[in-house]
Amino acid sequence: MTMMRAAVFVERGRIELADKAIPDIGPNDALIRITTTTLCGTDIHILKGEYPVATGLTVGHEPVGVIEKLGSAVTGYVEGQRVIAGAICPDFNSYAAQDGVPSQDGSYLIASGGCAAHGYKATAGWRFGNLIDGAQAEYLRVPDAQGNLAPIPDGLSDEQVLMCPDIMSTGFKGAENADIRIGDVVVVFAQGPIGLCATAGARLRGASTIIAIDGNDHRLAIAKRMGADVTLNFTTCDVVDEVMKLTGGRGADAAIEALGTQGTFTSALRVLKPGGRLSSLGVYSEDLVIPLDAFAAGLGDHRITTALCPGGKERMRRLMAVVESGRADFGALVTHRFALNDIVAAYELFSHQRDGVLKVAITPH
Amino acid sequence: MTMMRAAVFVERGRIELADKAIPDIGPNDALIRITTTTLCGTDIHILKGEYPVATGLTVGHEPVGVIEKLGSAVTGYVEGQRVIAGAICPDFNSYAAQDGVPSQDGSYLIASGGCAAHGYKATAGWRFGNLIDGAQAEYLRVPDAQGNLAPIPDGLSDEQVLMCPDIMSTGFKGAENADIRIGDVVVVFAQGPIGLCATAGARLRGASTIIAIDGNDHRLAIAKRMGADVTLNFTTCDVVDEVMKLTGGRGADAAIEALGTQGTFTSALRVLKPGGRLSSLGVYSEDLVIPLDAFAAGLGDHRITTALCPGGKERMRRLMAVVESGRADFGALVTHRFALNDIVAAYELFSHQRDGVLKVAITPH
Amino acid sequence: MTMMRAAVFVERGRIELADKAIPDIGPNDALIRITTTTLCGTDIHILKGEYPVATGLTVGHEPVGVIEKLGSAVTGYVEGQRVIAGAICPDFNSYAAQDGVPSQDGSYLIASGGCAAHGYKATAGWRFGNLIDGAQAEYLRVPDAQGNLAPIPDGLSDEQVLMCPDIMSTGFKGAENADIRIGDVVVVFAQGPIGLCATAGARLRGASTIIAIDGNDHRLAIAKRMGADVTLNFTTCDVVDEVMKLTGGRGADAAIEALGTQGTFTSALRVLKPGGRLSSLGVYSEDLVIPLDAFAAGLGDHRITTALCPGGKERMRRLMAVVESGRADFGALVTHRFALNDIVAAYELFSHQRDGVLKVAITPH
Amino acid sequence: MTMMRAAVFVERGRIELADKAIPDIGPNDALIRITTTTLCGTDIHILKGEYPVATGLTVGHEPVGVIEKLGSAVTGYVEGQRVIAGAICPDFNSYAAQDGVPSQDGSYLIASGGCAAHGYKATAGWRFGNLIDGAQAEYLRVPDAQGNLAPIPDGLSDEQVLMCPDIMSTGFKGAENADIRIGDVVVVFAQGPIGLCATAGARLRGASTIIAIDGNDHRLAIAKRMGADVTLNFTTCDVVDEVMKLTGGRGADAAIEALGTQGTFTSALRVLKPGGRLSSLGVYSEDLVIPLDAFAAGLGDHRITTALCPGGKERMRRLMAVVESGRADFGALVTHRFALNDIVAAYELFSHQRDGVLKVAITPH
Repeated sequence: MTMMRAAVFVERGRIELADKAIPDIGPNDALIRITTTTLCGTDIHILKGEYPVATGLTVGHEPVGVIEKLGSAVTGYVEGQRVIAGAICPDFNSYAAQDGVPSQDGSYLIASGGCAAHGYKATAGWRFGNLIDGAQAEYLRVPDAQGNLAPIPDGLSDEQVLMCPDIMSTGFKGAENADIRIGDVVVVFAQGPIGLCATAGARLRGASTIIAIDGNDHRLAIAKRMGADVTLNFTTCDVVDEVMKLTGGRGADAAIEALGTQGTFTSALRVLKPGGRLSSLGVYSEDLVIPLDAFAAGLGDHRITTALCPGGKERMRRLMAVVESGRADFGALVTHRFALNDIVAAYELFSHQRDGVLKVAITPH
Repeated sequence: MTMMRAAVFVERGRIELADKAIPDIGPNDALIRITTTTLCGTDIHILKGEYPVATGLTVGHEPVGVIEKLGSAVTGYVEGQRVIAGAICPDFNSYAAQDGVPSQDGSYLIASGGCAAHGYKATAGWRFGNLIDGAQAEYLRVPDAQGNLAPIPDGLSDEQVLMCPDIMSTGFKGAENADIRIGDVVVVFAQGPIGLCATAGARLRGASTIIAIDGNDHRLAIAKRMGADVTLNFTTCDVVDEVMKLTGGRGADAAIEALGTQGTFTSALRVLKPGGRLSSLGVYSEDLVIPLDAFAAGLGDHRITTALCPGGKERMRRLMAVVESGRADFGALVTHRFALNDIVAAYELFSHQRDGVLKVAITPH
Repeated sequence: MTMMRAAVFVERGRIELADKAIPDIGPNDALIRITTTTLCGTDIHILKGEYPVATGLTVGHEPVGVIEKLGSAVTGYVEGQRVIAGAICPDFNSYAAQDGVPSQDGSYLIASGGCAAHGYKATAGWRFGNLIDGAQAEYLRVPDAQGNLAPIPDGLSDEQVLMCPDIMSTGFKGAENADIRIGDVVVVFAQGPIGLCATAGARLRGASTIIAIDGNDHRLAIAKRMGADVTLNFTTCDVVDEVMKLTGGRGADAAIEALGTQGTFTSALRVLKPGGRLSSLGVYSEDLVIPLDAFAAGLGDHRITTALCPGGKERMRRLMAVVESGRADFGALVTHRFALNDIVAAYELFSHQRDGVLKVAITPH
Repeated sequence: MTMMRAAVFVERGRIELADKAIPDIGPNDALIRITTTTLCGTDIHILKGEYPVATGLTVGHEPVGVIEKLGSAVTGYVEGQRVIAGAICPDFNSYAAQDGVPSQDGSYLIASGGCAAHGYKATAGWRFGNLIDGAQAEYLRVPDAQGNLAPIPDGLSDEQVLMCPDIMSTGFKGAENADIRIGDVVVVFAQGPIGLCATAGARLRGASTIIAIDGNDHRLAIAKRMGADVTLNFTTCDVVDEVMKLTGGRGADAAIEALGTQGTFTSALRVLKPGGRLSSLGVYSEDLVIPLDAFAAGLGDHRITTALCPGGKERMRRLMAVVESGRADFGALVTHRFALNDIVAAYELFSHQRDGVLKVAITPH
């Protein structure tokens, strides 16, 4: 058997199943047989042609599977072992990784072609379904496998760890970048899967008041279960005013932006106390404006950070330890399940955010 | 003698000398007889009506002087002692100070009146020449004196410490916020007094390549003396290109913005490596735009910080220790000298940046 | 009424009630009418003469009460307001406070007299019941009240906030100093009141496996309620071996020592991974030995920190916010209640650790 | 040609030249032709049998050379390129490296045999001349070459970069761990090569007063050239008293221990202010005692850190950038030169610290 099924980008608006050769591997690679994977908002950007990838590329970057084959230089693993790999698979030998930013381990790739209007750059640390074939397939080649294969602890199901490669890692990074201290008030803007994980992350870091914002009451209800103390529906209140009331006029210590729009970014800045931190996770699609007053004209001791999802086996090990300890039920974010053969339907559901979908589980076999 | 001479804001375009009563002091205050003070770029904003202060307010926030009188609750000082106080005199008992941002120690003051077009807020930690009478006078009341009076080490002249209250404290904060590590490449945009101190601060923190940018070759020559390794005149080269060349395409680890314009901010962002830090010191006068590509659409692990000048006696003590150790000749930034009686002429020179002026020393007596 | 009842140190082995004058206050002080206070292990050291204080000093450093009178320079509070103050009342105008270590705000006080055998120094940031009259009395003078009075949020009872001044602040500091990251394994040695709060603090900071150690199964059961994932009774197992087993030989990321003995310190060092952090909270009574092998001969990238309880109104505000948010039931640590008139009996119970006592509540009125 | 000359450990007291096969390399290795190397204090411990290594092991861990051959999976380098590698060659794919401590990238190696009396453990991140053949030879196999080969910038001589692999990296790490802030007083104990680099590192990080301690006036004179403001010869003064005098009783902000003895460790602790940091670099040979009073009984907010030399190509790149920028003349630490054929004489000179030796340069060809 040398062929497999894979979801590939055909053209703007079309991601379809195709037959592709099972990847060959080099000495530092591993071949993973995918047992579960999922769709991400970024995949929808790819589907819509908003984020450019090569025609014929296999998409997807959230792999859960079993080691099928190990490169000759990869040690300490055995074939048949259950593993995950991060959405971002850094080359830990790179200058960037040694410099503290493994996700930024390559030179910038300038987007071109259909994306000229955007013109943004993607970081080369993100390889699956961006620079190389991805995880929505029967098999996946993992490069730099020695640093990226993370064994799944016994007793954890595929769906329990399915959030680790991207959603949890990104959401928690949002909380980590917010530099939360015990007793902080933290506001999390948008409660999609990443925002929900940012909410859980804020809880994990010791915030005493976590205010979750969204326009969807169902998502706000889930936010409560993930750790929010207060939820605000922006369609029915002025979020900035409410945060100021809730904090006695003091403002929030930190805000996490998990959507990628001007509106959420501006509100995230406006809820902050002087000296507050804005941790941005969203992928923006146009220039951002920082209103002068929200920024105290540059005198407010503000801090704004952005992040790309952290990867690597140590990160994955830690995230799975959080799942194992039952700190929150991250597997509950899986609302729908599809066979790989039905992935086009999964894209249809997910891209239209129908039926209360948060994350879908895709099983090839 | 109960009256003194003081430079007061009269109306847009007019700062003039006036006779005012020598301030009374309360139990936690001190009265300082000013021996040397100086003008700051912010004073020019006040002069031009771009930053609003009350009519009749004494301006200036960089005091060097002698303790004339101590409040009943202030201990550990003696009258006659030479001291400085920071441009920002925090209330160290405030929540903000205990929370790690002393300069942001009060509730925001909403600018009004002539500044409506701007509408920005000033932080209440800055009091001298903003919320209360300032230092361009014969005498100055220092509030919260216990936390703000810093004795001048023997052997240091007034001019040697005149940069400490604002210029050094702000410039060094720029370098501190840039989170410089040994071996970093740091680019400092604008080599006015604060930029020059940021350059010196980057040197102090261990950057191995400090690239100073300005449009004025005289200032660039001084930047070399303050610690720059390379200088670039933006009128004769493309600064972003040059930094990329100098770093072999890697980009700078950090950039310090010391002017407060869209152009320098954007360039500061563009010279950064993925994962780089932008430390902003400038006071902006309009909304800032973050270009999508310079920001990697929010995926670049960037960090942007702003700062208000740190104050307090410990900060001043440390800055004077740097002066005392001869790490750089900060007193050399004083290019011109005026008597307080001639302060209108000093404003004239300084506001038009004539005659290579960097900082002026004003001596009341 | 000018007299009050107060628990004073008489001589080694005797703390007794006495009549003392209600304190006078200066312009920066406040007078608090105590409504609830408690005993601390340090008070027992004082009782036993192991920690020297002046004869006649009122002991106790954990005040909950009502503002009876405010100094003339204290603003923003009203008489009758319910407040707490930290066990450590720093002078936030001090160099040490501005330098980032408010608890170390004074020059060291060299212990003398009965404590010569120990010869250790106490830090002057701790004033109540150490350098000035303390909280086990009807009234308490709070110095530097502007920075130290923390209003109690509506709806919180005295007992709910009684742990904030010392136990929670110290225990949480232990977790903060351990520099916990999401997914860490943290071992907490000793589950007395401070150790239990350190356990809760480790949970608040995102540890995924918290291993609580004690020799008392009752305390270990409470540790589970405060956030421990695993408990180990050192009388029935080899703690270091067990931690190594639980971590697959990797070792713990951090250990918190909450007792102050050589044995717990050594074990805390031995459970660490290379690069691990030891956060020490205990008050030691003799020289400490660092075994060469546990220290990897100085090559293990270890970090050892010690801490004195943080104080100040912002710290207290944050701790009360944690209580208010219901992150853990800290009031449940109060196991016994006494009237101030019966404080000698409370000392008797507490010093012998009878009847499962954790903390006692003392109510003067 | 398949044979080479190498300095090997024969038995306690004997390191001698021998003929060995030029190493074979695997896909992730590189073969370096050594052009310059040096001796380290650790090599003397090995020579004396105080630190155990296998009989026949090639010693040395400070390589400067030329790429002779690259493994098949190593990219981005060319044969003939001049490079260095760190004394510690981490596996950056390891859990430890991804966890922030690359130098601790392996499981502990328990010392055995001749070293039973010590029994300490060495960290597996240090491989050259410890776990695998080292650099005092004509050729060296560099494992994990992709992460460890650092190209030498044009214009730098072998001797200029010879300090980077160990001495500068370790000394600077001492300064980095001391968490120096602008204006700090830093005391550096012992001015051997590592202490001298720690002194230079303290200067690079912004200390305003650097106090260098040694018993050798010649070394103290060099310390001045490396950045010390004050030097103290411990044979002619009480160092702790002097530091207290120099700081007006305040104590030092940080101390760096660069020798590995009880005496220097204790003094380093005693010079600290409350809240001070002790950065330990020394390799100790017996249990350490922390005197109770020097430690404030555990209440002093102290921090003690240890370190193993950081490695990796990014670290080396940064250190060479410091050399290139002329921040200090690190090449001047080379006081003597030997051919590899005369290495036994070099050990003789270096182990007895004769003739003012600091570092020797060994050239195989």
